[in-house]
Amino acid sequence: MSFDIDASEWLNTAEPLSLPALRGRVVLVTAFQMLCRGCATLSLPQARNLHLTFSRDDLVVIGLHSVFEHHHVMTPDALRAFVHEYRLPFPIAIDRPREGSQLPETMRAWALEGTPTLMVFDRDGQLALQHFGHLDDLRLGALLGGLIERRPGACADASLAPAFAPGANAGAVCIPL
Amino acid sequence: MSFDIDASEWLNTAEPLSLPALRGRVVLVTAFQMLCRGCATLSLPQARNLHLTFSRDDLVVIGLHSVFEHHHVMTPDALRAFVHEYRLPFPIAIDRPREGSQLPETMRAWALEGTPTLMVFDRDGQLALQHFGHLDDLRLGALLGGLIERRPGACADASLAPAFAPGANAGAVCIPL
Amino acid sequence: MSFDIDASEWLNTAEPLSLPALRGRVVLVTAFQMLCRGCATLSLPQARNLHLTFSRDDLVVIGLHSVFEHHHVMTPDALRAFVHEYRLPFPIAIDRPREGSQLPETMRAWALEGTPTLMVFDRDGQLALQHFGHLDDLRLGALLGGLIERRPGACADASLAPAFAPGANAGAVCIPL
Amino acid sequence: MSFDIDASEWLNTAEPLSLPALRGRVVLVTAFQMLCRGCATLSLPQARNLHLTFSRDDLVVIGLHSVFEHHHVMTPDALRAFVHEYRLPFPIAIDRPREGSQLPETMRAWALEGTPTLMVFDRDGQLALQHFGHLDDLRLGALLGGLIERRPGACADASLAPAFAPGANAGAVCIPL
Repeated sequence: MSFDIDASEWLNTAEPLSLPALRGRVVLVTAFQMLCRGCATLSLPQARNLHLTFSRDDLVVIGLHSVFEHHHVMTPDALRAFVHEYRLPFPIAIDRPREGSQLPETMRAWALEGTPTLMVFDRDGQLALQHFGHLDDLRLGALLGGLIERRPGACADASLAPAFAPGANAGAVCIPL
Repeated sequence: MSFDIDASEWLNTAEPLSLPALRGRVVLVTAFQMLCRGCATLSLPQARNLHLTFSRDDLVVIGLHSVFEHHHVMTPDALRAFVHEYRLPFPIAIDRPREGSQLPETMRAWALEGTPTLMVFDRDGQLALQHFGHLDDLRLGALLGGLIERRPGACADASLAPAFAPGANAGAVCIPL
Repeated sequence: MSFDIDASEWLNTAEPLSLPALRGRVVLVTAFQMLCRGCATLSLPQARNLHLTFSRDDLVVIGLHSVFEHHHVMTPDALRAFVHEYRLPFPIAIDRPREGSQLPETMRAWALEGTPTLMVFDRDGQLALQHFGHLDDLRLGALLGGLIERRPGACADASLAPAFAPGANAGAVCIPL
Repeated sequence: MSFDIDASEWLNTAEPLSLPALRGRVVLVTAFQMLCRGCATLSLPQARNLHLTFSRDDLVVIGLHSVFEHHHVMTPDALRAFVHEYRLPFPIAIDRPREGSQLPETMRAWALEGTPTLMVFDRDGQLALQHFGHLDDLRLGALLGGLIERRPGACADASLAPAFAPGANAGAVCIPL
């Protein structure tokens, strides 16, 4: 599967971003809604911290505003006020509304279960993690540190699988194809 | 410099551990004193969490009880009661007291500045981090994830340097020798 | 000065509330904006906790949505979605917009400096505390415990003053008129 | 029942304290052991905060070191090092060891179940709260605020009972005798 973001608008960036164009870096996308409490209190502050901690050459943090409820009040204008008040500094895509559907385009294409959801892609653009809910700093840090260390092409003949089982490496492993 | 632990006694392990014998794994040593508040409230709970999160094939967590003050009350017997009450499950070395010195042997050999101090060694046994004070879960997780991912010998012609400057990779980088 | 809330609408209550009608109970009003980060993460969770901890005969908790910026997106409809998502169970007044002014009516009449602001009234309806920003649970709990204990009329010949100076009673004291 | 502390030694005070001599003030006694994790991380920091927040005319905070296990290492000397390292500023009584018993004298007389235990006495010296475990700042603050507000003799013909039932006043009430 090939992943990209289908956005109707971008905030905090002069140009729209595209996942294929970010190949060579690890990319973290945090799907959120501005009126989702877990997003406002946990996942967005964590994303802000990630954006301020890592080098942009290693990790790119992107917010994805995927509205699937209360559409009439979580508008682009409302999001702009929210982003200003919460001091969010990273690029944010507005997931494109889909005619006749509650779910916007990217949320549907990626089969997101709700918000917050973390999506992490390795330097080759391969999905390394899809996690619905919050992930603690230690495990997320370990996953990102491992993916940043891994050079592009390292999993060329393999697929990635996150390994969070108890007693297992809190990272992502290459699984031979 | 070659690092090893000079212990007068070990708790929570049938056999004494040696850093050279742990080559192939990442090793984290947390130097502490049982009556040090930052150790009891921050670094030891973090070490416990690390021990329970990572695979023992990837990361070995070791406590190092380096007493440099209040020697008459931070005795091996007192430490045993402390380890029991704080439910510390990882191996703990008692830093060997040094005749005529406040500082025990390992603390002196490693030039530790106080407690808590984090020491992290890569799979080749090379020092990747020496940090006096607490390090947050995100940065420590990223460092460990990177070191776990890196295969032995990856820095064969280089030395390791941690990179925590603002805007820099929160990990460790190989510096050409 | 006589205090009351000038609301254009109430949520979470069948009937509008009025401060004079609540005489005999301690009343806490938390002025907030739905897109104010300190409100969403600190003062509203605290108000929710207060509402669930104290008897309604002793303490009545009221939210006051005083919008003074981003008026076009902090609408009554948006507030309803916010109150639903944040599971706020206490009565909430929408501060009445004022023609030709950024500040709504109650905010202006009470001279509120911003959000969050805590207003606490004693059993006689006298203002016991006006605090801009967050107040920790210990000090707020002590103030409320003291006001709840004090029977109506206890300060009949006096005015109330909060006493938060270092070393002072973290409560409110009667000052002879 | 008449309460007093039977101490073999006092720290942080020039003279031993006695509960009868403190009549007129609210007194909080926190029973602890230096190697009890809940004490070191929760109840002692809270007691320190109480001591620094309230006026000494209103509230007196006392630590009670009630050793009932690991007696050979939780000695007065060890306690002195602990009190120094944890920067505890309030008076601390060492509960008097009892010949042939694990339990020290005050712990036995007061029927304490373990550590940490909070004991709160009103201005008349009457027991207002005995709580095994931690009590959150909001409820403890409300209890203390109520007791501080209540003048001596207010419960002369009644006994005190704490009221922490859900929906009830988080304070203490006079129960007619």
